[in-house]
Amino acid sequence: MASIIVKFGIIRYLSTHSLTRPRVVFSGIQPTGIPHLGNYLGAIQNWVQLQDTASANDKILYCIVGYHAITLPQDPVHLETERFNMLASLLACGIDPSKSLLYNQDQVPEHTELAWILNCITPMGWLYRMTTWKSKLAVARNANSEEEVNESMLNLGLLAYPVLQAADILLHKSTHIPVGEDQTQHLELAQDIARAFNHKFNTDIFPIPQQLSTPTKRVLSLRDPSQKMSKSAPSEKSRILITDDPAAISAKIRGAVTDSNPDITFDPTGRPGVSNLLSMLAACTTESSVADLDSTAQLYRGKQIQDLKRDVADAIIARVEPIRTEYERLRKDLAWLRDVSQAGDQEARGRVGQTMSEVKKILGLARH
Amino acid sequence: MASIIVKFGIIRYLSTHSLTRPRVVFSGIQPTGIPHLGNYLGAIQNWVQLQDTASANDKILYCIVGYHAITLPQDPVHLETERFNMLASLLACGIDPSKSLLYNQDQVPEHTELAWILNCITPMGWLYRMTTWKSKLAVARNANSEEEVNESMLNLGLLAYPVLQAADILLHKSTHIPVGEDQTQHLELAQDIARAFNHKFNTDIFPIPQQLSTPTKRVLSLRDPSQKMSKSAPSEKSRILITDDPAAISAKIRGAVTDSNPDITFDPTGRPGVSNLLSMLAACTTESSVADLDSTAQLYRGKQIQDLKRDVADAIIARVEPIRTEYERLRKDLAWLRDVSQAGDQEARGRVGQTMSEVKKILGLARH
Repeated sequence: MASIIVKFGIIRYLSTHSLTRPRVVFSGIQPTGIPHLGNYLGAIQNWVQLQDTASANDKILYCIVGYHAITLPQDPVHLETERFNMLASLLACGIDPSKSLLYNQDQVPEHTELAWILNCITPMGWLYRMTTWKSKLAVARNANSEEEVNESMLNLGLLAYPVLQAADILLHKSTHIPVGEDQTQHLELAQDIARAFNHKFNTDIFPIPQQLSTPTKRVLSLRDPSQKMSKSAPSEKSRILITDDPAAISAKIRGAVTDSNPDITFDPTGRPGVSNLLSMLAACTTESSVADLDSTAQLYRGKQIQDLKRDVADAIIARVEPIRTEYERLRKDLAWLRDVSQAGDQEARGRVGQTMSEVKKILGLARH
Repeated sequence: MASIIVKFGIIRYLSTHSLTRPRVVFSGIQPTGIPHLGNYLGAIQNWVQLQDTASANDKILYCIVGYHAITLPQDPVHLETERFNMLASLLACGIDPSKSLLYNQDQVPEHTELAWILNCITPMGWLYRMTTWKSKLAVARNANSEEEVNESMLNLGLLAYPVLQAADILLHKSTHIPVGEDQTQHLELAQDIARAFNHKFNTDIFPIPQQLSTPTKRVLSLRDPSQKMSKSAPSEKSRILITDDPAAISAKIRGAVTDSNPDITFDPTGRPGVSNLLSMLAACTTESSVADLDSTAQLYRGKQIQDLKRDVADAIIARVEPIRTEYERLRKDLAWLRDVSQAGDQEARGRVGQTMSEVKKILGLARH
């Protein structure tokens, strides 16, 4: 390979250019509840790592997406609080506003403006195919199958929000999107929309955004380990929040549902409860993302589940406690949170103004 | 009625208040072609009259709606020109930027921002019911019946644009909407959305906008008087543009399709061609909106259709020629057009900022 690069200068240039071209990393999170351990280990921790390992030319953007939250009914007073909570949570987890642009989608109207433009090139069929829409349909009528339901009572926002997601991404000409596997379909839609726009208007304004896959740290419910840990599950004991204190964490882990087999083995399919404990232990104690969980299990040969649970609780507390105390500190410093928020919103508006000017010029809608 | 008012002071107060409350009049027009005589006599002339008879407290807003235009494919170069043409056309017809706020929707992103918010409270069923959507569905597959078609190839913008229209209206807290009967269904949707928002958030932020009905001056195609005069009909001879010169107008009227009956009588159902000539004559020569067209017809007893056509052409020329010359003058004064446009856009952005702040506060999405 080296010889090819030496021989063909142009290839070398392109290759180097491609490797060192500034990345624009974008991801969003809804302000609907304090992040839990699944959110932290599965996404936010990864955001912090991306931020801290970025090169000087990379741009890292994290967006609190209030306009996605309102596709479902929200209590306004609660939502207002949750937006501040999410800001403080992300900062407490290590998002650094001097390294990442952290801002509120709902303070940058260009998100919705580009979404409208993209609405006009997005076929309905692309949206009807989205599995989240199909599941909303099914839930809407509490139906047994998707064929049985009638979407007339669902709001348009639920159908249209993947286009707003595409706009979120394309508005920044983002190149790399760290999202979980459950968002792959939406990212593919954003790619299709970017290609459609570029092709329709014979331009290359939008890079095709690539998924930044990261090792999935799938954290399961402590009450029902057949399910993922979730913000919306009824039992608060099913999840550990990044704001839980040590006593709460210990109690929740002690109460974690496992099975009647007293041995400690790693078997995610047959024994999801105990395997989830081992996964959390490894995720909170090792830097490596590919921990050997069978080896971890062997360390507990002859020990009891209580021993494992105590170590898991200790490991989670060691990871969460600095976040919780930082969160408590930040949440009292409203002035600073406002400063961070307003500075982020302002920088974001400045960035997107340039993109929108280009888009409008392409469409024939330039400022007179 | 006077005695009731004297007797019941409170009724008198409410009644007076209601009568003298400042109106907010809003209407929009797409920048897709020079207005024709049907647009002028049916809408724009009425806009000018509303402007010129408004009280000092009324606010009159006219909006060139580029974001509606792009729901159908547009050539960008052409669209850019059409936006300037529409601005010059409205000014030439008598819209006075010192009396009316004339601006470009596509330069005020809050239109799309409010549209997104309204998307989230608008049931899909309300949109599927819109007859424009149903006809788009039918055309999409060139089908004989609406049941036969599949909407998957239509873009989302075509389904969603009545919500953008509602946002256009509500963004200004508009109270009165001068639109033709073909827009009644969309205005009713805007009313439903306003009520839904007010009810859902227990607010009265949005007045329920009322349709300002005006005597319809229905101008028919000169080539096929069974149809309305239309921007999109293939034959240019079917319509008179406000930029047509006297020779063009005379030629088009001379070629207007009538019927084989040499008598001149007013019979809009049985004889639409000659009746359309009489309507245009009355509309261009009388100030009254309820001309007695039978009487007009009687003035031509014993005369020939050529006589009527000559008078119609003269009347149209007398009405259109000042508009045409003003249009030509304005269209060369790009600097002034830009000034008007930019000043309008800026004032509009200022106005809607206040509404959006209130809306976001209601939703729990206030600026931090």
